[in-house]
Order: sequence, then C-alpha cells, then structure tokens
Amino acid sequence: MNGEKQNKFYSLYEHERKIVESKLSIIIKNRKPASLYVPGNYILEGGGKRLRPLLVLLSAKAVSKKQSSFYNAAIAVELLHNFTLVHDDIMDNADKRRGRATLHKKYDLSTAILVGDSLLSVAYEYLLKDCNGNAKEVLASFTKGLVEVCEGQSLDKEFELLQNVSLNDYIIMIEKKTAAMAEMCCKIGAQLGGGNEVEVKALTNFGKNIGIAFQIQDDLLDIMGNVKEFGKNVGGDLVEGKKTFLLLKALEIAKGNDLKKIKSVVMQKGIQVDEIEIYKNLYCKLGVIEEAKKEIQKFSTKALKSLKYLRREEDRKIFAWLADSLINRNK
Amino acid sequence: MNGEKQNKFYSLYEHERKIVESKLSIIIKNRKPASLYVPGNYILEGGGKRLRPLLVLLSAKAVSKKQSSFYNAAIAVELLHNFTLVHDDIMDNADKRRGRATLHKKYDLSTAILVGDSLLSVAYEYLLKDCNGNAKEVLASFTKGLVEVCEGQSLDKEFELLQNVSLNDYIIMIEKKTAAMAEMCCKIGAQLGGGNEVEVKALTNFGKNIGIAFQIQDDLLDIMGNVKEFGKNVGGDLVEGKKTFLLLKALEIAKGNDLKKIKSVVMQKGIQVDEIEIYKNLYCKLGVIEEAKKEIQKFSTKALKSLKYLRREEDRKIFAWLADSLINRNK
Repeated sequence: MNGEKQNKFYSLYEHERKIVESKLSIIIKNRKPASLYVPGNYILEGGGKRLRPLLVLLSAKAVSKKQSSFYNAAIAVELLHNFTLVHDDIMDNADKRRGRATLHKKYDLSTAILVGDSLLSVAYEYLLKDCNGNAKEVLASFTKGLVEVCEGQSLDKEFELLQNVSLNDYIIMIEKKTAAMAEMCCKIGAQLGGGNEVEVKALTNFGKNIGIAFQIQDDLLDIMGNVKEFGKNVGGDLVEGKKTFLLLKALEIAKGNDLKKIKSVVMQKGIQVDEIEIYKNLYCKLGVIEEAKKEIQKFSTKALKSLKYLRREEDRKIFAWLADSLINRNK
Repeated sequence: MNGEKQNKFYSLYEHERKIVESKLSIIIKNRKPASLYVPGNYILEGGGKRLRPLLVLLSAKAVSKKQSSFYNAAIAVELLHNFTLVHDDIMDNADKRRGRATLHKKYDLSTAILVGDSLLSVAYEYLLKDCNGNAKEVLASFTKGLVEVCEGQSLDKEFELLQNVSLNDYIIMIEKKTAAMAEMCCKIGAQLGGGNEVEVKALTNFGKNIGIAFQIQDDLLDIMGNVKEFGKNVGGDLVEGKKTFLLLKALEIAKGNDLKKIKSVVMQKGIQVDEIEIYKNLYCKLGVIEEAKKEIQKFSTKALKSLKYLRREEDRKIFAWLADSLINRNK
C-alpha cells in the first residue's frame, strides 16, 4: 500500500482508513472500567493497515444501490482482528507488536486475556448496530469467521509439534487462520449492502482467495523482504522453524543433501541467525521462491475472476487494485 | 437443589438438566481439529448445575403460547458460562475446578486461552440456530451479557489491588460479573419465547435480582457452608483476602479492635487457615452473617415480586421454587 500516493484508489483507501482510525480511537477509550478499556485502547492505538475494515466497506459499496456506510461493521472486524492479535501474542510469547510491547508484556497475562475477550464482545456490539432485517445472516457469517479463526490457530499450534505437515494441510490451516477473516469481511460487507446471492458469493470468494494469497506473500516476505520496509527481522520464520509455505514446498522438492538440510530445520526446531543467508540461497536454488510466487498468482487470479460478477467497472477496478497492492506489497 | 428429590419441580429440573447434559456431551466432541475440541469437551464434561440453561428454558416456556424448545440457546449460555470459567481459572491461577484439574493445568496456557475463545464462538453459533425474526434483539441481549461479564471480571481483579472498596462498588461488580449472566439468560429466553415487553422486563428483573442474591449466598456459603456439601474449603475467601459482601460489611460495621482485625485481612491480603474459626466468630458477633441473610432476602424478594407479571400460576411457582432452592442451597 505504499509508493502509490498519487493513485486515486490509494487516496480512497487513505480516506477510509482515517475515518476508521478516528472512530477506533474513541470507542473504547471512554468506557468504564478503565482497568479494562485503557489497555484495550492501547492495542487499538498501535495502528495497522486496517485492511479488514476496508474489505467490509468496499464490499458493501460494490453491491449497494444507494449511498450507505457500515462503519460500525468495519470497526467490528478490526476489533475482532485485534482480539486475535492480543491472544495470539500470548500464545506465541511475543514481546513486540508493531514496534511496541505486546499487551501481556505492557500489562500482565490476566489483563491481556480479558482485554481480548472484551474486544470480541464489543465487536459483536458494534456489528449489531449495523444489522437490521438481516442480522441472523450477518451474525452467522461473522461467527463462522470467528469459529474458523480459533480452529486455524489451533491447527497452527498443532503444526509446531508435528514433523509431517503437508502443503495441503498448510493451505487448510491458512484458509482458516487468515483467509476466513478476509472472506468474512467481504461477506458481511456484501450482506449488509444488500447484495444478491451471486454478489455475496463472488465477494466471499474474492476475500477467501486474496486471504490465502496474502498469507503466502507474508511467508515470502519473511525471507525476501527488506528489513527496513518489512519491519520484522528477515528470516524470522526459519529461525523459529515455522512450517511456512516455503519450508513445506522445499521439503517436497528437495533431494539428497538439500533435503537433509531442509529436514534439519524441522528436527532442530529452527536455525541459527547466521544460517539465514544459506537457507535463502537454498530456497532460490530449489525454486521454492518461484513456486511461492506462482501460488500467490494462482490464488490472486482466482480472486480476480470472481470480480466479474460485480455490477460496476469502478468497483472491479478498486478490488483489482487492492489485490495487486496486497500481493506486491513489501511490508 | 438437593434434598428435594420428591418435589415435582426438582423432577422437571432434573429432566431438563439431563437433556442439556446429553446435548452438551456431543456438540463439541466430534468437531475438528481435535487439538481444540477435545480439551473443549473436557471442561464441558466437568458437570455443574446447568442453572443458566434452565433459566433460558423456563423463561421461554413462561411467555410462550405454544410448546417450543430452545435447547440451542440453552446450550449457548452454558458454553458462554464455561468460556468464563476457563479464562477466569487462568486469571485466578486455580488448580482445581469441580474436583478436576483446571484446563490450563490439564493442558497448557495456550490451549486454555484458545478453548475459551472457541467455546464463546460456538456459543454464538448455537444461539443463532434458535433465532429467527428477532435475531438482532436476542443477540444484543446475549452480547450485553458478555460485555458486562468482562467488565465485572475486570472490576473484580481491580478490587484485589484496592484497599477501599465500598459495598456499593461490590454490588455493582457482582451485578456485572454474576447477575448479568442470569439476567441475560432470562431475557433471551423471554425474547425467544415471544414474550411481550412487560414479560421480558419482568423476567430480566427476576434474573438480575436472583443473580445478586445467588452471589451473596455464595459468599455466605464460603464461611458457613459444610465442607462436605460445599465441596470447597470453608473460609477460602478469607484465606485469600477476597473482598466479599461479608468482609466489606464487616469493615462498615466493626469498631475498635474488631475493625483492626478486619482491616488486617485487607492489609495482609488474607489470613492463616487456623484463624478461620476466629473470623467466623467475629462475623457472627458483628452481625455480618445476619446482614448477609437480610441482603439475600432483599434481592430474592425483589426477584419474586417481578413474577406477578407472568401469565400462569404454574410458571410463577416454578420460578419461586427455583429462587428458594438457590438461596437456601448448601453447595
């Protein structure tokens, strides 16, 4: 989402992001008790791309015949996202999030658990504000996303302990852990905007496929990203021995000594920092980087195909721009 | 709820409890991934009174003109309750729950956080199954209950660190932490059953007031309960220095040396096990036990008063029996 400051779509994104940001900055802040909502506000203040709210707003706009805004629903998905961040950070024992102390480090474990729960509760509260006749459908989509995010996180934790994880297992996991959320954002946007069955399905598919592409791109950035732009340490996934698309693809492709080297990442539960460059070269040699790019392209193409069901050229264009920005991002 | 095996209301309760129990035993068990739902099933298998589902079922029945059952909603409130138990046990660093290892002790912290989240997600999933035209109202009531439970738990944790907590603060805290859940159960039952405004309000009030009475009774049982029947160690709240109704009332009433002794519970953050008997006698001498009983009676009477708005004598009787059982229970 950078280097495109002149782009009119980027301006629209920035416009919506600022509205979401300003709404987010007040909703939790003034609630009581402060012992719950001040820490809750801390995580919301941490920034982020606010992509999920954008998916809700754009999807609603794409199907809607009249001007309408669903900022409460947009806020709801961002609250849900932050709930997952707070709890995931505890489970991953992470110290930092967006350059600041994670919530359980800044406060304590109990506060972080409770703040996560509370963000989720307020997410439902906000979502309900934007629901009318279709509350059951919208809430069911939102809840399905939540159920899947929990299942995806559980699979992800499970994979840490397993030695044999297939690429297929991995895709199922990210479908739940990452893609289910993007899918849900597009779906509820389309439902709230009053989209017909074809439109809701088209946007749901867009969200799901762009979500998968996004996650594989994330795996790729971990090793190919520029440290300054990426904001995380390059090669972190390898150091932690995380079973990413790249590692699992390498396990499929590699033979002989190369396979031994790749297998040792799993067996040793990670590598040393000074080995990152060696593994990066090995990934390149094995063609794993190219395979990842192909996979990103595959899911991105699937996402773009479903856009043909949208009524207006302008809406197809902005979703295409968004897809392009996401899979070509460098942070 | 014991010693009344011959009572027809008790039989009805047992009948409903068994249905809820058998439904609870299968809903989570067969879901995948097992890494998430097997631990989820562990907490549900732990038993409990299943009072919250009963409140939903009875409230729906009391306002309904036709025979209808809302077991999915009943399951939903029990799942929500178990979500709070799992997360609260982490925050309280509790080892045991209903005589078995708590979930974070049996498994680990990450699993327990995630299982709690997941129980909540499945709670919404089940509640939605029973909603039709009134999904927005029902979901809003359920969500308000959830928001308040989080706020109540935060206040409770806050009170642990404060030296000055008034009885008024305490009532506000238990209104949110305990009573909001009973209130919500009665309210969604009444809404699902198609109750009119007066009926919904009456049952909501019943739930709220009986919830407050229930919590003060819980505080009382901690010191006056029979260890065998109560199932917890008598005097546990005093040992932990918990700011219960009894302790806060004693702080209000006591003077001179008695006040010094009561204050030392707060200052020392609890007492020794061998001091429990001394404090029990002091509570009796100060009249704190009687005051607690009066308070329970006050809220119970409030609860019973709202029953007059129910249409059928039979329904008023069963709620009165339930209220009586709860405030005269010994475990």
